[in-house]
Amino acid sequence: MKRVYLDHQATTPIHPEVLSLMENLQKEVFGNPQSSHYFGFEAKKLLEEAREKIASLLNVSPSEICFTSSGAESNNWAIKGVAFANQDKGNHIIVSAIEHSSIIQPAKRLEKMGFEITYLPVDKYGTVDLDELKKKIKKETILISIMHANYEVGTIEPIKEIAEIAKENNIIFHSDGVAAAGQLKIDLKELDVNLYTISSHTFYGPKGVALLYIKKGTKIQPLIEGGIQENNRRAGTENLIGIIGMAKAYEIAIKEMEERNERLKRLRNKLIQELPRMVENVYLTGHPENRLPNHVSFCVEYIEGEAMVLYLNQYGIACASGSACSSKQLKASHVLLAMGIPPILAQGSILFTLGIDNKEEDINYLLEVFPSIVKKLREISPLYKTS
Amino acid sequence: MKRVYLDHQATTPIHPEVLSLMENLQKEVFGNPQSSHYFGFEAKKLLEEAREKIASLLNVSPSEICFTSSGAESNNWAIKGVAFANQDKGNHIIVSAIEHSSIIQPAKRLEKMGFEITYLPVDKYGTVDLDELKKKIKKETILISIMHANYEVGTIEPIKEIAEIAKENNIIFHSDGVAAAGQLKIDLKELDVNLYTISSHTFYGPKGVALLYIKKGTKIQPLIEGGIQENNRRAGTENLIGIIGMAKAYEIAIKEMEERNERLKRLRNKLIQELPRMVENVYLTGHPENRLPNHVSFCVEYIEGEAMVLYLNQYGIACASGSACSSKQLKASHVLLAMGIPPILAQGSILFTLGIDNKEEDINYLLEVFPSIVKKLREISPLYKTS
Repeated sequence: MKRVYLDHQATTPIHPEVLSLMENLQKEVFGNPQSSHYFGFEAKKLLEEAREKIASLLNVSPSEICFTSSGAESNNWAIKGVAFANQDKGNHIIVSAIEHSSIIQPAKRLEKMGFEITYLPVDKYGTVDLDELKKKIKKETILISIMHANYEVGTIEPIKEIAEIAKENNIIFHSDGVAAAGQLKIDLKELDVNLYTISSHTFYGPKGVALLYIKKGTKIQPLIEGGIQENNRRAGTENLIGIIGMAKAYEIAIKEMEERNERLKRLRNKLIQELPRMVENVYLTGHPENRLPNHVSFCVEYIEGEAMVLYLNQYGIACASGSACSSKQLKASHVLLAMGIPPILAQGSILFTLGIDNKEEDINYLLEVFPSIVKKLREISPLYKTS
Repeated sequence: MKRVYLDHQATTPIHPEVLSLMENLQKEVFGNPQSSHYFGFEAKKLLEEAREKIASLLNVSPSEICFTSSGAESNNWAIKGVAFANQDKGNHIIVSAIEHSSIIQPAKRLEKMGFEITYLPVDKYGTVDLDELKKKIKKETILISIMHANYEVGTIEPIKEIAEIAKENNIIFHSDGVAAAGQLKIDLKELDVNLYTISSHTFYGPKGVALLYIKKGTKIQPLIEGGIQENNRRAGTENLIGIIGMAKAYEIAIKEMEERNERLKRLRNKLIQELPRMVENVYLTGHPENRLPNHVSFCVEYIEGEAMVLYLNQYGIACASGSACSSKQLKASHVLLAMGIPPILAQGSILFTLGIDNKEEDINYLLEVFPSIVKKLREISPLYKTS
């Protein structure tokens, strides 16, 4: 069966170069980087080389990079770690209303524990309003967390400006860069954030490895404690091969970024232009231009998004209806609702996220089958019948 | 250079069969198990097969297995998760004084937050006293955490009896099985614990993956939240290949356990008998019989343990002086101090942990070089001079 993978936001395959590096090392190196002998020294050397590589690509110091196991871990750590470490200064936290659930849920947890959370609204494109942000800041505000780019609608947020506002007000600023990493140029020194989350498996690195950038001087409590790893900040024997794979994948992503993005943007734009022409009542979600180069997202009226995903799967097309971390919840996405999209329309969310292996023929195939799928689904849709 | 690896407690190489399985799958399967399409279904199927396999080997239900990224994560989760979820019932927690730092540090953290922690003493062999445990229990006790076997001295604790005491008193019982897993038969239904930690990289599985067994009905708050993975209990895209590798490694460990243990016990006993005969003022630490089959630990008087480790490394022998998570702290081990070993002697801690690739000639080589190393180090030791 023909298979077209258009769900690179959910995860990506490991890049062949990364895979071959990992395979070679897996056979040769197994020491615990904390051990005081040859096997440990060898592992430690490779670990620190990977740290230096990725730190240099992000334009920060190696000691500011903490490897973790997932974007969710980094996000949980950032939110809870800053909250607990700075509660003597204040109990107010600002997050955008369209953050990933690994920010929203910890925020809700903190709310139950006595912290005050402001969920910053966004406009119809999913962009946070800087004036609104300034208004919400108060003297008890200890943390702002706003993602670099949104998972579901691809919109890129004005991170540099937010960082400036945070800095002026002496507030710690975290940005979830999971959707952005590998697709946008990320110079963490220039962005001047305090904390930044990156996850390997979204840029053709292995799963099970991620990082949290912690700017020197940022007060944060560990989430996983009881070990000297990661400068005493994150306990647990290091996932050495995963970390090396992540650093390599990031290096390749940076090297190939311009070429990848140019190509994917062209394919993306074709979808953005053609699909609403071929199917009626299909609306682009997210910002029309200021969005991730590989990201296309729509709301299709009168159809349930998950049904479209399952139907497209029967044609060999893999895509998503929301974030992979919550897609099976079958609730209208909090992201789309925050953008003012009516719940009935938000249920028809579908996203296509392109990747380095996609060809123009993949897009053509999608454009070929999508109209008839929508037609069939609308015929049997209770949403359509009642409309 | 001849290299002899005797530090299997710190980490183990990946078993060749596991490695080849992982390599094959890494090339073929990359989907996100939460995605609603072919690539996701394929990943989900393999994920659940791995979960079923390891659950069945542990004699529990698959839904009771939560995959995590490290023993440290599982331990942190168990302690903090139970504490936060059960604080309406009480604020008292009992841990043994010889737990791994990923139990001790979270316990100290909870202490600062208003929980009361009892550090249960152990005897000279490192065994917890059941009568003492019974005496420490009070109506506010919500959690007992005692490891299955100790990392540094190999002593096996009476987990089944502790579980009974906990159950009688309606207290949640967690056991850290990182050192035990792959070496002792673990039937979690028979042991009747509520929570149990296992980490892949100590039984020839990959690093970066572990699990927390959570008995049905055990009240625990997530540590990493905001995703539907692991039955809504642990957010983060699953480390699929790592999880599959872990399950395979555990299957092999169980299959080969009897044969491995018989052989390693023989080599271990040779070291336990011969080494103190060949070097004076060398004392076995931990229980002489009731200890891990691959585990030998000594205190060598008048020498600093880390110095021995580094010196042995020059002869190609890899070993440790305490747990890899804290060895570089250069403090006398809290485990040895809790066993009543004087600090000056505790500093001379050294452990040799054998593995499936070790041969009798490795042990002979160690016995050959160790006496002269001790002699040399004692000649230059300030401890020796001042004695």
